[in-house]
Amino acid sequence: MSKDKKMVEAITSRDVDFAQWYTDVVKKADLIAYSSIKGCTIFKPAGFAIWENIKAELDKRFKETGVENVYMPVFIPESLLQKEKDHVEGFAPEVAWVTMGGVNNLTERLCVRPTSETVFCDFYKDDIQSYRDLPRVYNQWCSVVRWEKETRPFLRTREFLWQEGHTAHATFEEAENRTKQMLDIYATFLEDFLAIPVVKGIKTEKEKFAGAQSTYTVESLMYDGKALQSATSHNFGDGFAKAFGIQYTDKDNTLKYVYQTSWGMTTRTIGALIMVHGDDNGLKLPPRVAPTQVMVVPILQKKEGVLDKAYELKDRLSKVCRVKVDDTDKSPGWKFSEQEMRGIPLRVEIGPKDIENNQAVLVRRDTNEKITIDLGDIEAKVSKLLETIQNDMYQVAKDYLNTHISDAHNYDEFTDAIENKPGFVRAMWCGNRECEDKIKEETTATSRCIPFGDDTCLSDKCVCCGKPAKKLVYWGKAY
Amino acid sequence: MSKDKKMVEAITSRDVDFAQWYTDVVKKADLIAYSSIKGCTIFKPAGFAIWENIKAELDKRFKETGVENVYMPVFIPESLLQKEKDHVEGFAPEVAWVTMGGVNNLTERLCVRPTSETVFCDFYKDDIQSYRDLPRVYNQWCSVVRWEKETRPFLRTREFLWQEGHTAHATFEEAENRTKQMLDIYATFLEDFLAIPVVKGIKTEKEKFAGAQSTYTVESLMYDGKALQSATSHNFGDGFAKAFGIQYTDKDNTLKYVYQTSWGMTTRTIGALIMVHGDDNGLKLPPRVAPTQVMVVPILQKKEGVLDKAYELKDRLSKVCRVKVDDTDKSPGWKFSEQEMRGIPLRVEIGPKDIENNQAVLVRRDTNEKITIDLGDIEAKVSKLLETIQNDMYQVAKDYLNTHISDAHNYDEFTDAIENKPGFVRAMWCGNRECEDKIKEETTATSRCIPFGDDTCLSDKCVCCGKPAKKLVYWGKAY
Repeated sequence: MSKDKKMVEAITSRDVDFAQWYTDVVKKADLIAYSSIKGCTIFKPAGFAIWENIKAELDKRFKETGVENVYMPVFIPESLLQKEKDHVEGFAPEVAWVTMGGVNNLTERLCVRPTSETVFCDFYKDDIQSYRDLPRVYNQWCSVVRWEKETRPFLRTREFLWQEGHTAHATFEEAENRTKQMLDIYATFLEDFLAIPVVKGIKTEKEKFAGAQSTYTVESLMYDGKALQSATSHNFGDGFAKAFGIQYTDKDNTLKYVYQTSWGMTTRTIGALIMVHGDDNGLKLPPRVAPTQVMVVPILQKKEGVLDKAYELKDRLSKVCRVKVDDTDKSPGWKFSEQEMRGIPLRVEIGPKDIENNQAVLVRRDTNEKITIDLGDIEAKVSKLLETIQNDMYQVAKDYLNTHISDAHNYDEFTDAIENKPGFVRAMWCGNRECEDKIKEETTATSRCIPFGDDTCLSDKCVCCGKPAKKLVYWGKAY
Repeated sequence: MSKDKKMVEAITSRDVDFAQWYTDVVKKADLIAYSSIKGCTIFKPAGFAIWENIKAELDKRFKETGVENVYMPVFIPESLLQKEKDHVEGFAPEVAWVTMGGVNNLTERLCVRPTSETVFCDFYKDDIQSYRDLPRVYNQWCSVVRWEKETRPFLRTREFLWQEGHTAHATFEEAENRTKQMLDIYATFLEDFLAIPVVKGIKTEKEKFAGAQSTYTVESLMYDGKALQSATSHNFGDGFAKAFGIQYTDKDNTLKYVYQTSWGMTTRTIGALIMVHGDDNGLKLPPRVAPTQVMVVPILQKKEGVLDKAYELKDRLSKVCRVKVDDTDKSPGWKFSEQEMRGIPLRVEIGPKDIENNQAVLVRRDTNEKITIDLGDIEAKVSKLLETIQNDMYQVAKDYLNTHISDAHNYDEFTDAIENKPGFVRAMWCGNRECEDKIKEETTATSRCIPFGDDTCLSDKCVCCGKPAKKLVYWGKAY
């Protein structure tokens, strides 16, 4: 019983201590375990199954646009990492170094990949010869390592899982289009599949990826008002191509450099799922990503016919959703709490009385609403209700985002908003790094992005220095 | 054109130089590229797509037996690796060591996992408390690193991809059943899906996995007569449990050690696919695992209507198989050679004359047979033909295996067979390590397995020392 107790023990309220609430959910929803390796977590079945669903769906969407999967070595020789100046400055301080193979010291140390631009470039320089070889639109699913000092499950760990796409194109324009196309795929995926609304935009120079010409981002808002960068897509121009010598013979028989992009989404997305949707009862998974969408809970299951009916419902429902029966010997109350903690979107309660009346009770995880339905068309009802839950969860999150964007017209309003109004703060910016640095130092807020398609002009002056403003920026504290 | 030429240039004949033939196929079928990291290869799209198909199918079969996927850290602290004596002796000499994180030396060095028994054990010792927590049937898909000196694509590389299952059970018997169940899954998968016949059996003490009580294996036979260990399944008894202190409280309220297993299949399986089925025209993929099963090749594609018809056939066939159109501007001859090199199981030729006669020509990759069919029921014909190819490829490989097993009744026959008769050699063995060592030293052959369900008694004396024989053993040179 000790394990059951742990499961349904109250967790910290998210309004009291959000960080503790997060840690409680992560552990009690059985998503991860801590490992003996500092800063590395173990993905338990419930946590990994979420990633498997994310991966399967995103991979399908990638492939529909011509992406092909490959696998590159986990190690990067130091000399390769150093080829692109900005890139090495960004990553070298935080990598793990392999210095021995077996009992021998290596002549050149190897880092465990923190990201694979350099190995893709090293590959492309031989792989790409002619305009016929372009574009190359490759992606890999793998783990990467960054030697972080402070770590938190899913959000920041020394090893994490992700996908990294790396493409090469004949023209800058084609690379730019691919960069934006992938950003759109991320945005649509986050909104449709994970029910997480996003703000799309471009990063400032300060915040862009090491070595990129421009970085596009999708930013989402957590319940505590902090932003989470949920995926990024980078246009490298021909910077890496020049550093690595990636040239192709064009139709006119001249040698030209390729233009490149990269784009990635990581397991921190699971952190976003938790922090956007979860509540004081635990995890709350949108149906599309939920490994188990429906849990059938038999009531008075020792009574004749109840378990049989539960299995029968499971068989019927398995044609329209991912469904399980909780036939353990725990009480229904325990089971309710457990399945809520685990974020199962819909519960089906079935007991002797229900069977008598040829009905079942559906309980929504998102609203707690109970709906008694006739068993006759349970497949259609459940199917439709899962769609409703998915849409409603998105709408709730979208409303939350919309009501957590404040506008600041001057520095006083800005610091007040950052301090007292959880969420994004929109404010005008002069375009200078100094103002970003000052804002970060004084408020801990960072520029999240310059949004696409938002022409709002809140002022003609920079919110920080008062000089002429160039851009509207979304600012916020961030994970 | 340089790339096309490379593609259809003749490759080394497999009967002239099998090793060179293998290298030619691996490169010209576009499966891998060599990387700047010695001993690590790059999986190109055609190579990785094979692994994706293997993974998807095997993963499905695992899950049908209750396997759940997890993900464990890539690093193992040295102290953890050392906990099980035999295990550390087996692996420590061939691992890559991380000694620095960022700019700091680590207080304890970490190896990049060569296999994850130790991290799973470290996890299970906290995760498993009660009989209610058993069994644990976990698996992970990941890459592992072993610092090999000699490497060959797919067969032996410093980094390779695999799955590793790690289970914990209440009883020895349950662990033994799981060990055998997983071996059966591998055997069936290899035979049904990859058309590779196998010999199932148990490894000798000398050949078993470091730390295992017993190791089961599926051995397959390559075209050159060498064996390839295609998957293994280990029963650890309670050895690791005792080394790591993995105990649970049983129903009778006493503390007991768990019994464990592990089992794995790797990307060397792709090497087996190549070496079992390939021929002098290149790769030959069984339809079930082939990323592209059918290639439509338009003939005289510039003539009006030909390309349209090719696309129409592709659309129709895509309902029953994975199909593409080769609409590049290469000549049909080039295309035929290319698709043969890549191992596409079936080619559909469609030209103006065929269109006139409402027909197409199907060409089997396995037999080169040409079959003219009416377009009216092309879906059914192609679908059935793919099944036939799959079965025929298995039968050809099975016949090859059966005709490449020799029996040796004494040491002269044995050395002669190992030297002159490519394939497995069956011979009786006394059970002593000394004879295995001597045989390996003098002939380079190793004991592949003690086969299941083969009661043949070739002699009552050991083929090596003449002492009383205990077991029939399959011997062979091996990859």
